[in-house]
Amino acid sequence: MLTPGATIGILGGGQLARMLAMAGARLGLKSHIFSPGANEPAFDVCAARTVARYEDEAALAAFADAVDVVTYEFENVPARTAEFLAARKPVRPNPRVLALTQDRLVEKRFVQGLGIETAGFADVADAGALARGVAKLGRPSILKTRRLGYDGKGQILLQGGADLAVTFRALGGAPCILESFVHFSKEISVVAARGVDGEFRAYDVCENVHEHHILATTTTPANVRPETAARAALIARAIAEAADYVGVLAVEMFVLDHAVGPIWERLVVNEIAPRVHNSGHWTLDGATTSQFEQHMRAVAGWPLGSTRRHGRAVMRNLIGDDANGWRELLGEEGACLHLYGKSEVRPGRKMGHVTRVTPEEP
Amino acid sequence: MLTPGATIGILGGGQLARMLAMAGARLGLKSHIFSPGANEPAFDVCAARTVARYEDEAALAAFADAVDVVTYEFENVPARTAEFLAARKPVRPNPRVLALTQDRLVEKRFVQGLGIETAGFADVADAGALARGVAKLGRPSILKTRRLGYDGKGQILLQGGADLAVTFRALGGAPCILESFVHFSKEISVVAARGVDGEFRAYDVCENVHEHHILATTTTPANVRPETAARAALIARAIAEAADYVGVLAVEMFVLDHAVGPIWERLVVNEIAPRVHNSGHWTLDGATTSQFEQHMRAVAGWPLGSTRRHGRAVMRNLIGDDANGWRELLGEEGACLHLYGKSEVRPGRKMGHVTRVTPEEP
Repeated sequence: MLTPGATIGILGGGQLARMLAMAGARLGLKSHIFSPGANEPAFDVCAARTVARYEDEAALAAFADAVDVVTYEFENVPARTAEFLAARKPVRPNPRVLALTQDRLVEKRFVQGLGIETAGFADVADAGALARGVAKLGRPSILKTRRLGYDGKGQILLQGGADLAVTFRALGGAPCILESFVHFSKEISVVAARGVDGEFRAYDVCENVHEHHILATTTTPANVRPETAARAALIARAIAEAADYVGVLAVEMFVLDHAVGPIWERLVVNEIAPRVHNSGHWTLDGATTSQFEQHMRAVAGWPLGSTRRHGRAVMRNLIGDDANGWRELLGEEGACLHLYGKSEVRPGRKMGHVTRVTPEEP
Repeated sequence: MLTPGATIGILGGGQLARMLAMAGARLGLKSHIFSPGANEPAFDVCAARTVARYEDEAALAAFADAVDVVTYEFENVPARTAEFLAARKPVRPNPRVLALTQDRLVEKRFVQGLGIETAGFADVADAGALARGVAKLGRPSILKTRRLGYDGKGQILLQGGADLAVTFRALGGAPCILESFVHFSKEISVVAARGVDGEFRAYDVCENVHEHHILATTTTPANVRPETAARAALIARAIAEAADYVGVLAVEMFVLDHAVGPIWERLVVNEIAPRVHNSGHWTLDGATTSQFEQHMRAVAGWPLGSTRRHGRAVMRNLIGDDANGWRELLGEEGACLHLYGKSEVRPGRKMGHVTRVTPEEP
């Protein structure tokens, strides 16, 4: 268990690291950011920074010496980096979690192994395997690189008539997974935390709307049956426990059109994010403990905080030019604006978000 | 009006600057801290820092070049420092406010000049003036240095029998003010903000309890009549307008034992703090907009945010060893803990605070 004044090392310097660092500072924890980028959002709010590549072992060793525990804001931390650090200081969540979540195929097998439903999938090592996968899963289906995709990058929707060899080459010939297309009625996520002592706490289930493959809004609570919400939390808990997870994680799920049986809507796990998550940003303004504070508590070995909601929360991302509306948002009564301090506005870039919390409807 | 990405220069690097910097970062503002101390709480959360004396004009000039607007976390900024900076960049609140609030005698005269009641007072330049003051105000009365007192430092309670010459020498022979002792039933404060455009917003009136001359708890709302609360806010507004104030200020007042007339309890202004204030810390967890965000909005020339309360808020300071209770506080459901990152625990030192927000009693 760390004491206040301890230093949390964070790999990555984006907005998630920025909000983690601020949450830690509130509790008297210092943050040391490690990032290859020289001009990172998190650098404005941290006690120390290291600008170096994730492969720079001298820099990593010095970083490990300077911190008490290591965490990360993104799942694509190189495995060697995580192992190098884990040999020196606790890395939370543990590096096995990265191995699990960096590869869509490994992740799907892990989830299915827990008896939790995923989309149908096939391992696609080459164009021939793609043809066999399509024969099994049908169309539409989605071809994704096993590694390094995000926000819709590294994936192609396979509809009727698409040439399979061309499609496979379009993803660079990288090892892929083919996933059956899920006809869902809504997307939800569970943002939850697990402590060093195994304590588990989930926020209320969130409902997400994506636009152009990027999260647009998150509304909490999700409009699902209470039994569905409870089952979603149990799924997140099973995943966290099986991975011996420490910290905040998000589990994205689809709710299917057709209910199965009288008890709950059918849930299909889409993705595990081993980190604080965009669909948990509403907790900054809408819950007693933000997901960022919760993560810092967990990685510090501290008790988890209350996940109580203040009301109904709607979080909207400010993507690219959306951030130009900051004046109006500042003037809107009760709108909680967050800007990430990114100097350059680019299309599709997450520049900030705004959360509106309103009293719960009776 | 600044734009996100702009830099706010803050004089002082303590916990108030620390919380200001974090609030600014949330809105995409960078903070540049200027402080003579090399190891300041605010340094953990700022984009840039200058360690230099307030008299170092080269450092001040470079600081002014690097920032878009200057503000401060404490009222004892040297007048020359404020003027030097004001010649180069906007200083908010304006330096005249410092002149007003650095000298208890000037401040009392200013408040009385607005038709607002203060304790009785007398200018005490020497021991002879002290004798005349005591003859006028009686005992008990309080002798205070005109400048540089805080948390009960630089003041002596004059009771029956005290030797006046000895008492005057005990404060170093500095210019003093003698104040009549106010028999109050409670201490309250108004934390409020005024924007560049003159917009004024006050938080609900707070009730403060001091222990050993240091603020112990703040409870909001104060247990006063609605008319008293309304009048307290009007007093703060009159002061802010007369001073052409920009930013957050706090006005401490006494509520007197004996009501005057049927309308309101009698209010006596004790002190003006030209800055964010300890009695406003509850706003971090208990209001839509924290006092720190409100101050940054005001100094940036932005619209003020909502001062709506989430419930009844009780803030307790963690003084000295109190901070050792952090483990229990972290585990207490709904307790919002704030630690200031001070490495050394000293008796009487403000190490953090904890706020508990509970639903409003009907």
